[in-house]
Amino acid sequence: MTSDIPHIIIGRLPLYLRALSRLKKEGYNYASSRELGKLLDISPAQIRKDLSHFGELGKRGKGYEIEFLISKLNQILNIDTLWDMIVIGAGDLGSGLARYKGFSDRGFRVSAIFDIDPQKIGKSIGNLVVRDFNEMCDYVAENKVQIAVLAIPAQNAQSVIDDLVEVGITAILNYAPIYIKTPAGVQIEHIDPSVHLQKLSYYLK
Amino acid sequence: MTSDIPHIIIGRLPLYLRALSRLKKEGYNYASSRELGKLLDISPAQIRKDLSHFGELGKRGKGYEIEFLISKLNQILNIDTLWDMIVIGAGDLGSGLARYKGFSDRGFRVSAIFDIDPQKIGKSIGNLVVRDFNEMCDYVAENKVQIAVLAIPAQNAQSVIDDLVEVGITAILNYAPIYIKTPAGVQIEHIDPSVHLQKLSYYLK
Repeated sequence: MTSDIPHIIIGRLPLYLRALSRLKKEGYNYASSRELGKLLDISPAQIRKDLSHFGELGKRGKGYEIEFLISKLNQILNIDTLWDMIVIGAGDLGSGLARYKGFSDRGFRVSAIFDIDPQKIGKSIGNLVVRDFNEMCDYVAENKVQIAVLAIPAQNAQSVIDDLVEVGITAILNYAPIYIKTPAGVQIEHIDPSVHLQKLSYYLK
Repeated sequence: MTSDIPHIIIGRLPLYLRALSRLKKEGYNYASSRELGKLLDISPAQIRKDLSHFGELGKRGKGYEIEFLISKLNQILNIDTLWDMIVIGAGDLGSGLARYKGFSDRGFRVSAIFDIDPQKIGKSIGNLVVRDFNEMCDYVAENKVQIAVLAIPAQNAQSVIDDLVEVGITAILNYAPIYIKTPAGVQIEHIDPSVHLQKLSYYLK
């Protein structure tokens, strides 16, 4: 089933999940596609169509039961478990990600952080100690890690990604401001704040 | 002209710009839509169609002159100037953004960073000193800043955004993991790493 669903629909599921979690926190039990649409600036018809790919999840007239839909989306997105991930790069960004407390209730945990800089290796960041990047391959193999977060400069990114893919990483969140292709079977997502800022500056006077 | 062009097209222009800058660095003078498409995983037809909104920018058979298209895109995206922006929140993420050297050659500069925590106010981050958030309104008014970057927890985000909008901020890059609506005339972009990670985990086994 999973492979038939367009990536663009998968991309909206985390947004639905985030909005539902917020409504749950606010004490709601049911959410209509109209309410979700309003929170997310997505048309209610689109939301209903997206979710219909995964069965009949809503009740006519009542909307979606929030608790049920959250657990269903957790299951679809494979986050009813906690995924270990490694961070490459222990600069400001990597350190921040390693310390960030927002991952754990959304399915993820930073289990190790690596750097090549001898000045950084051995330093404590939260509960972790920065490891030598040369130990990355062994660590990933031993711990069967599948997710890596790249917080390194653009010029090193391609060679690091090649290493990661070779050792079995299949999911990469890339903060290096460069577009990188990965082989089939490896998923990559990019976060580049300048790209977002340039979208904003278009509208400035 | 500008307001007629769909936001989704504007959203792709920074990606074209990033790819063109890379090709320029690699010594190329011309780029075809096919080459750009390959770098970006976007169809050449889409790229030609997007760019055609801004005039006849390419030459049949030769493609786009890179230097020319870069300067044209800089102009369209309003980044032929350097925009000052303020960062709200001097935690790991805010500090990292304040120190990040990648903004300046893409049109932006962090000119001030603010926090409410007395322990952080007065601390040096790169060339900046963390300012009291209570001084934010005066600072924005005096310096006519239009862009703010939000690096604070979700629970404080809405009230901070209300303050920012009131004092005249019209462009917000939001790192708080929450969807926030802004009034008409204020643009907001969201960066939430967990959303990207959940897109990745969908494909994991």
